[in-house]
Amino acid sequence: MLASRSPQREAILRQLRLPFRVAPSRHHETTVPGDPLATVVANAVGKARDVAGRESAGLAPAAGSLAPAGLAPAGLALEPGHLVLGVDTVVVLDEGVLGKPADAAEAAAFLSALAGRRHDVVSGLCLLDSGGDAWTAHARTAVTFRALSRAAVAGYVATGEWRERAGAYAIQGVGSALVTAVDGDYWNVVGLPVALTLDGLAHFGVAPFSWLAAPPKFAAP
Amino acid sequence: MLASRSPQREAILRQLRLPFRVAPSRHHETTVPGDPLATVVANAVGKARDVAGRESAGLAPAAGSLAPAGLAPAGLALEPGHLVLGVDTVVVLDEGVLGKPADAAEAAAFLSALAGRRHDVVSGLCLLDSGGDAWTAHARTAVTFRALSRAAVAGYVATGEWRERAGAYAIQGVGSALVTAVDGDYWNVVGLPVALTLDGLAHFGVAPFSWLAAPPKFAAP
Repeated sequence: MLASRSPQREAILRQLRLPFRVAPSRHHETTVPGDPLATVVANAVGKARDVAGRESAGLAPAAGSLAPAGLAPAGLALEPGHLVLGVDTVVVLDEGVLGKPADAAEAAAFLSALAGRRHDVVSGLCLLDSGGDAWTAHARTAVTFRALSRAAVAGYVATGEWRERAGAYAIQGVGSALVTAVDGDYWNVVGLPVALTLDGLAHFGVAPFSWLAAPPKFAAP
Repeated sequence: MLASRSPQREAILRQLRLPFRVAPSRHHETTVPGDPLATVVANAVGKARDVAGRESAGLAPAAGSLAPAGLAPAGLALEPGHLVLGVDTVVVLDEGVLGKPADAAEAAAFLSALAGRRHDVVSGLCLLDSGGDAWTAHARTAVTFRALSRAAVAGYVATGEWRERAGAYAIQGVGSALVTAVDGDYWNVVGLPVALTLDGLAHFGVAPFSWLAAPPKFAAP
């Protein structure tokens, strides 16, 4: 179960062909001042726990589960073998965190600050299973922006692609033209660190691509 | 004009919102033994020249042009301001080049060779304008694969995603689960180095995002 309403994260799980359903959390994001790593891990745990707690209490019975083992009967929450995935991502420049810009002027300011420089995208991940086992980790990817003229910043801002994007850009969109290099997990910059997600699944005994095998047939009564 | 029939390259140009049309070249790919860089640049030049030559000779009048300046009247070949883009990409491991696997067994062999290691994806780029000006360059991106069990290799091969892919994987597909990190231009691994393409466009006076401006209205007669 993906404890997130991010369409980018959904798209990445679909790309991996992992069976999952979305259950947005009601977790209120917190900030650990001066510590982006602790912040994203705390929020990932908060999101996953919120969804797992509501699932267990029967408050969200329609929500589904991430069932990477390929053993996902529909309609039941937190089955054995099902996992809840919480993720939080921030953009870090000079120890400061760039969130989602409030308006076009702030988007232009963010992009001007990022231009010609390297910044970090940091994600926290939390996987919870039905037995209460929790796995947390973080990923850091360095992103280098090209130098940008005022006209280039204005041209990108005019696309509106910065809306709802931490750091004011989407690397998987027209914003790919802003970037000269990434160092680390590219998918982390889109919204979900794939390599770390695979590591977490391995912690729960789910091997790479094992979820692609045909799901077991349930015998008719 | 994109001198390629690669759907991945088309998708990247669409993502950048660059106006373009596809004109696959009839260039026969060559290999410079022991020199992948020279090979990809030679093939990029060969593809671009082949298409530009046929355009000029009127042999492919329906093919279009890459018109990044946003000044693309349809149906005319190699207009001033139009460019031809040729690209060639190879996967390099231990100085050897991995091409497209012939069958599932070769795909499994390629993936086993890449597992747990770093390899390079190298692309050559050539941009030609209507005045005969040529710009060439290359991009190199390092890709690190996770360690893979026999079962994981078999699981990925079973997806068939390796078909028509140099190195037997698609980083933008389920194959993203094979990779732990990239160092350089991610899009180069998909098939077109975006940052280098932007550099080439800048060589011809086309600034980043300038092509997003509304194209000029053609006055009615």
